[in-house]
Amino acid sequence: MAKEVTKRSENYSQWYNNLVVKADLAEQSAVRGCMVIKPYGYAIWEKMQRILDDMFKATGVQNAYFPLFIPKSFFSREAEHVAGFAKECAVVTHHRLMNDPDGKGVVVDPEAKLEEELIVRPTSETIIWSTYKNWITSWRDLPILCNQWANVVRWEMRTRLFLRTAEFLWQEGHTAHATAQEAQEEAWRMVQVYADFARNYLALPVIVGHKSPNERFAGALDTLTIEAMMQDGKALQAGTSHFLGQNFAKSFDVQFTNKEGKQEYVWATSWGVSTRLMGALIMAHGDDNGLVLPPALAPIHVVMVPIYKSEEERNAILEKMEEVKKSLEALGKSVKIDDRDTLRPGFKFAEWELKGVPVRLAMGPRDLAAGTVEVHRRDTLEKETMSLDGLGAHICKLLDDIQANIYQKAYDFRQANVEKCDNWEEFKEKIQDGKFLLCHWDGTAETEQKIKDETKATIRCIPEDSFVCEEEGVDIYSGKPSKQRVVFAISY
Amino acid sequence: MAKEVTKRSENYSQWYNNLVVKADLAEQSAVRGCMVIKPYGYAIWEKMQRILDDMFKATGVQNAYFPLFIPKSFFSREAEHVAGFAKECAVVTHHRLMNDPDGKGVVVDPEAKLEEELIVRPTSETIIWSTYKNWITSWRDLPILCNQWANVVRWEMRTRLFLRTAEFLWQEGHTAHATAQEAQEEAWRMVQVYADFARNYLALPVIVGHKSPNERFAGALDTLTIEAMMQDGKALQAGTSHFLGQNFAKSFDVQFTNKEGKQEYVWATSWGVSTRLMGALIMAHGDDNGLVLPPALAPIHVVMVPIYKSEEERNAILEKMEEVKKSLEALGKSVKIDDRDTLRPGFKFAEWELKGVPVRLAMGPRDLAAGTVEVHRRDTLEKETMSLDGLGAHICKLLDDIQANIYQKAYDFRQANVEKCDNWEEFKEKIQDGKFLLCHWDGTAETEQKIKDETKATIRCIPEDSFVCEEEGVDIYSGKPSKQRVVFAISY
Repeated sequence: MAKEVTKRSENYSQWYNNLVVKADLAEQSAVRGCMVIKPYGYAIWEKMQRILDDMFKATGVQNAYFPLFIPKSFFSREAEHVAGFAKECAVVTHHRLMNDPDGKGVVVDPEAKLEEELIVRPTSETIIWSTYKNWITSWRDLPILCNQWANVVRWEMRTRLFLRTAEFLWQEGHTAHATAQEAQEEAWRMVQVYADFARNYLALPVIVGHKSPNERFAGALDTLTIEAMMQDGKALQAGTSHFLGQNFAKSFDVQFTNKEGKQEYVWATSWGVSTRLMGALIMAHGDDNGLVLPPALAPIHVVMVPIYKSEEERNAILEKMEEVKKSLEALGKSVKIDDRDTLRPGFKFAEWELKGVPVRLAMGPRDLAAGTVEVHRRDTLEKETMSLDGLGAHICKLLDDIQANIYQKAYDFRQANVEKCDNWEEFKEKIQDGKFLLCHWDGTAETEQKIKDETKATIRCIPEDSFVCEEEGVDIYSGKPSKQRVVFAISY
Repeated sequence: MAKEVTKRSENYSQWYNNLVVKADLAEQSAVRGCMVIKPYGYAIWEKMQRILDDMFKATGVQNAYFPLFIPKSFFSREAEHVAGFAKECAVVTHHRLMNDPDGKGVVVDPEAKLEEELIVRPTSETIIWSTYKNWITSWRDLPILCNQWANVVRWEMRTRLFLRTAEFLWQEGHTAHATAQEAQEEAWRMVQVYADFARNYLALPVIVGHKSPNERFAGALDTLTIEAMMQDGKALQAGTSHFLGQNFAKSFDVQFTNKEGKQEYVWATSWGVSTRLMGALIMAHGDDNGLVLPPALAPIHVVMVPIYKSEEERNAILEKMEEVKKSLEALGKSVKIDDRDTLRPGFKFAEWELKGVPVRLAMGPRDLAAGTVEVHRRDTLEKETMSLDGLGAHICKLLDDIQANIYQKAYDFRQANVEKCDNWEEFKEKIQDGKFLLCHWDGTAETEQKIKDETKATIRCIPEDSFVCEEEGVDIYSGKPSKQRVVFAISY
C-alpha cells in the first residue's frame, strides 16, 4: 500500500494528493469541489476541535449557532467586504422541486422562486452583526464573545482536498467590544491561542505577524496571521484573527450606550481556523512512507501487530497484547490491536506507517517468551526491543519525545530555509527554491504588487515574533527606505 | 423578567415560544425559518452532543463528514425517498454574484448558472450511499458505521423555534451491513441508545416502538421511534432509527462479494436526533417560572447569589462563595457566582429560575456568620437552610434527586394521561383532551388515515416497551380484528 504513494522528491503536489486519499483522510465527492472527510481524517479534525474549543472557552468564549443562509442584500452593506467575498458563492434561488411533467425525475419548481436570493455563508460577519444589533444596547451587554463551528462555502474554481475546497469546516469567532483597544487585545489573544495550538499540538513552528494591507481580510483594519512553512518551502496561512474596527457595526447600525451615556458604534473582531489545518499537518510532517502524526493529535497512539504462525501462538500473543493495551489505556493512551488474520505483518506495518500512527509494537513468540516487544517509532523509523516491565512509562516518554522531535524537525527545516535577502536578483532565484525571505519593504501596496507580479511571492506577514525584523534598510525592489524586514514567500 | 412568560394554562403554545426567547435559548433570524441558537441554548445542545457522541462511539460508530450539497439527479434515484423528501428544499442554481450593472448592490450573475442544480441536504442517504459504493467491495469492508453531526435544511412553511425550523442541527448515522439481520439489530441498538439518552439525561419517559407503514421514513422498511409526551398531552417524536433494507444500495448499486463469493446488495440503516430535542426538553419539564433543566444537561448546576448591603459584606460573602464554588467544582459540578452589582437578588432569583438552573444558593451576612447557606431547588421550588459543612455531598445528592424527580414527574404525568380506549366516541373526546390512547388497530393504512382525517390523531407507535399491548381485540374504528393495541395521539 505505502509504496503507491508518490515520493515527495518526485512530485510533492502529487505526493500530497496521494497521501490524503491513501491514508483514508478524505476524498472527492460527487459534488464538484466538495470533499468527504473519512472517519480517520475526521477523528484527527475532532481532536483539533476539542482542544481548540477548550482553549477558546478558557478565554471566556461561548459557542452559538447562526444561520447557514445570508440574504443577498446583506452582502451589499459592507462595501469592502462585498468586494472581497460576494463573488464566488452558492446562491439559493428556489425552495421546491417537483416531478418533471415531461417524464421521470425531478425539476426545480419555477413557482417556488425566492423573493430574495439566499447565499450559503462564505463567512458570517454580516448575519452575525445583524443579530448582534438586537443583543447590544448598553456597555453592560459587552463584550460578546461568540464562536461557531460550522460549514462554509466558497465557490473555488481550483480545489484541493483540505487546502481549498468549495465547502469546508471551520470555526469562526465573532466578538463585540466597547473599545478599540479591547477588540485589538482580543484579536491578539486569539492569534496567540492559534500559535500556541499550532506549536504545541500541530507541531508547527508558525510565525505570528500582521498581514500587509493588501492581504487583509475584506473589511478588516488589521489581520493577524500564523504562517507555517511546508516541506516544499511554500507558506501556508494556518489561521487568522481580524481587528474589524467599527466597520460591521456601522454597516448594521450596532450602537451601544457607553458609561458616559453616549451612543457609540461597537468594535469587532473575527478569527478562524479551518479543515485547512489538516492539509498543514499532512504537508509539514509527512514523509515518503505516509503520514507522520504528532501524538497530541493522533487518533491512535500505539498500534500493536502480532506475529505468529500457529493459532496457539496467535492466541497467546493477543492475550498478552490485551494486557499491554489495558495498561497503556490506563495511562490515557489510545491503542489498537491489529488482529486481522488475513493480512501479513509487513502489510500491516506499511499500512499503519501510511496512517502515521506514532508508535508500533510488534510481538512474536520469541518476544512473548522473553517478555519483550519490538517498539517502532514512526517519526524516525527506529526500532528497539524493550522489556514489558516498565513499558507504560517508556511509551509515555516516547510519545512526548516524538511530539518534541516532530516540532524540532519542522523548526530546523524552517530555520534552514529562512534567509535575509537584500538583493533583488538573489530574491528571484531563492524564492523559486522555496525559501522564506526576510526582506526590507517600503510599505507600499505598489511595490508589493510588483513583486507578486514578477515572482508570485507575497508578503506572508510582518512578523511579531520568530525573527528580529525591526531594522533600518532599503526596500529590496524599490530601493526606498524601510523600517523593518517582512517575510516574503510563495504560498498555498 | 420571569413574569413576562405566559402561563402554560393560558396558552401553552405561547408559553413555549416565550420561554425559548426569554430564557436566551434561541431566536428567529433575519432568514425566514432559520434560527439563531444563543450561547445558553447552544451550551445545552453541546452537552447533548457530547453525551450522545460518546454513546455512539461506545457501540463502534465513527464520525465522518459528507457534503452539504446533493446533485438534483440523486433525488430521482430512490423513488419513495424522492416522494417523501425532494419537495420543499433549498435549491442552489448559481455560483456567482456580481455588482448590479444598474447601480448599487449585487445581483446573481446569470452566466454562472450550474449545469445541474444542487440541493442543500434535507438528509444524506443519497450522497452517502453514492460514496459507500466506492468503499465497499467485499464482506471484509462491512459493517460501516458512520455518523455525522451536521446542519440540514427542509423548507418548512410553518416554523417554530427548535420544533420545526428550515435549518436545523442534527446527527445522522448511516450504517452498511452484510445481512438484513445485522442491519435490523443495528437499527434496534440505536433506538435503544436514544431511549437510554432520553430517559437518563433528558429525563423523558419515552415509549419505544415501530412506526406504522404510513408514518415510516421515506425509503425505510421499518422505522423505530422514541415518542415523548409533552405537558399538553401531545406527542413529540424525539428520535428515529430506520431499517432501510437494500433500497439505497439498489438505487446506488452498492454490492459486495459475500463470504461465498457471490454479489449481494448491502443492507442499510439510518438514525437521527436533532435540535428538536431542545424543544422536547423545554416543553416536557418547564413551568410557569421558566425552564426546568435536568442536572445531566444543565450548563450551570449551581448558581450562587450574594445578598448584602455594604461593600464589606459583599466582599466577605463573595470570598466565601469562591471557596464553596471551588469545592463544588472539585466534585465535577458547574458553578456560577452571580456577582452583578447593579441587580437586586430577587431579580437574579427570577432570572436563574427562568433559565432553569437546578440549584440556587443564596447567602447573606447572617448565613455567613452562622456558616450556612439557603439552598433552593428549581424543580420543586423548595428552600432549606444548610450548613456549609458537608455541603458538597449534599449538593451532589440533591442534583441526583432533582434528576430523578424530574423524570418521575414526567413519568407520572404520562401514566396519568395514557388510557386504554375501546370506544370510538370516547376516543374522539379524549384525544382532544391530550391523552395518549392505547387502542386496537386493524393494521390497515385506510383505517389509520380515516382516524387521522376525523381527529388529527396519528399512530405514534406500535410499542415495543412501556405498555403491554399484545392482546386480541377489535379495531376501534373499523371493528375489524386486531392483534395488539397501538398508541394514538395528536403530535407536534
